[in-house]
Amino acid sequence: MKNVDVLFFDILGTVVDWRGSITDKVEAFLKRHDISHIDARALTDTWVGHYDRAIDPIRKGQRSFTSLDTINRENLETCLAQFNLPPSQFDHEELNILSHAWHTLDPWPDAVEGITRLKEHYIVAPLSDGHTRLLINMAKHAHLPWDMIFGADMSQSYKPSPRAYLHACELLNISPQRAMLVAAHDYDLEGARSCGLKTAFVPREHGANPSKETDAPLPDQWDYKAGNLLELAALLNKIR
Amino acid sequence: MKNVDVLFFDILGTVVDWRGSITDKVEAFLKRHDISHIDARALTDTWVGHYDRAIDPIRKGQRSFTSLDTINRENLETCLAQFNLPPSQFDHEELNILSHAWHTLDPWPDAVEGITRLKEHYIVAPLSDGHTRLLINMAKHAHLPWDMIFGADMSQSYKPSPRAYLHACELLNISPQRAMLVAAHDYDLEGARSCGLKTAFVPREHGANPSKETDAPLPDQWDYKAGNLLELAALLNKIR
Repeated sequence: MKNVDVLFFDILGTVVDWRGSITDKVEAFLKRHDISHIDARALTDTWVGHYDRAIDPIRKGQRSFTSLDTINRENLETCLAQFNLPPSQFDHEELNILSHAWHTLDPWPDAVEGITRLKEHYIVAPLSDGHTRLLINMAKHAHLPWDMIFGADMSQSYKPSPRAYLHACELLNISPQRAMLVAAHDYDLEGARSCGLKTAFVPREHGANPSKETDAPLPDQWDYKAGNLLELAALLNKIR
Repeated sequence: MKNVDVLFFDILGTVVDWRGSITDKVEAFLKRHDISHIDARALTDTWVGHYDRAIDPIRKGQRSFTSLDTINRENLETCLAQFNLPPSQFDHEELNILSHAWHTLDPWPDAVEGITRLKEHYIVAPLSDGHTRLLINMAKHAHLPWDMIFGADMSQSYKPSPRAYLHACELLNISPQRAMLVAAHDYDLEGARSCGLKTAFVPREHGANPSKETDAPLPDQWDYKAGNLLELAALLNKIR
């Protein structure tokens, strides 16, 4: 760890509670339209459930890079239609605003203090599928004290594409071995490790993306494991 | 100003006192080697005086993008030779460390508080010839509370090349009209304005780069003018 200078953080699920935050916004949306027969959590999970299917063509080079604003908006329309809510019955701008719920996700309770403590000894930065502007808006909303932000639009690639990890290391002028990814998801940690980065696993209840295939978790495979970001700060700052 | 979301800051000279900070490091270097016949400020000004000549071929596409670490190191050797101090008589690593003085420049006294206040209402970010890692190290050293950092290595271009300003606007997903450059140097403000950005001038004594041609200052040409960053915060936050 003495050789690690930079901590990259997965954001969606690891630093912020996307599921709870979006469910709140969806609930308010359904209430505003007097739709009581649809469960907000079910609609949220369906919405996010389209995530991987929408991103995969970009990962495979079959679609040019498209930011989460567009992806989330497209998926919202698909999802509303699945619930027999034709998107055209809603105001265009209202659906835009609902899509932008991803810009103001709330952090897990340990996130701000944990990152603040880690910042004392490391460069801390999100490395997210979110684009730069989304991550800036989220940081201002949630008071996340990043040193730098790496949006997917900077590398024009989505994780776990190697380019996502390596582009950030290049901009920081470090070898991948001097960086570590902090994440709640195995597929992301595996992507980072295959590029040479160190890995730290932080479990998050309901942090999983329902669009991912659910394999057995692999928490013992990673370099470090901590219950949350405060515990990770205690662990990593001690050995720095 | 209601339409401006983002404030970009020139760094070298505008936010940090490069001349004072580097002179201190040069003074310590000369003392360590018992060199008393050379004035630290003269050597600093000569060193920085090579800046434009070294950057110009990159601006013109005659040299591929090269970061300030390399430029400053090359210029330091040229400069030492001019003072009859052959670079080979010094330890290679010591010259590297002296070159890295640019990573830990000290802020002007109003900078941290001024930027903190502006951050309440705007996205605040450096837009500098410094590369990303240099700007991150400087922010950690000087406690500059940026929302985002735009290093010259991200756009692979040096100001006043239009690409430097437009690339940052693209990543923030804004039209240039929704951004403003804050700078102490006319050539930089002119570059920003020609791309459609708003402009704010902050005068800095000894902030000028001795490698620039000195034209008559043009403070009245810019959209806003303030004595320092605290005064700028009072001005811009009021009309937001």
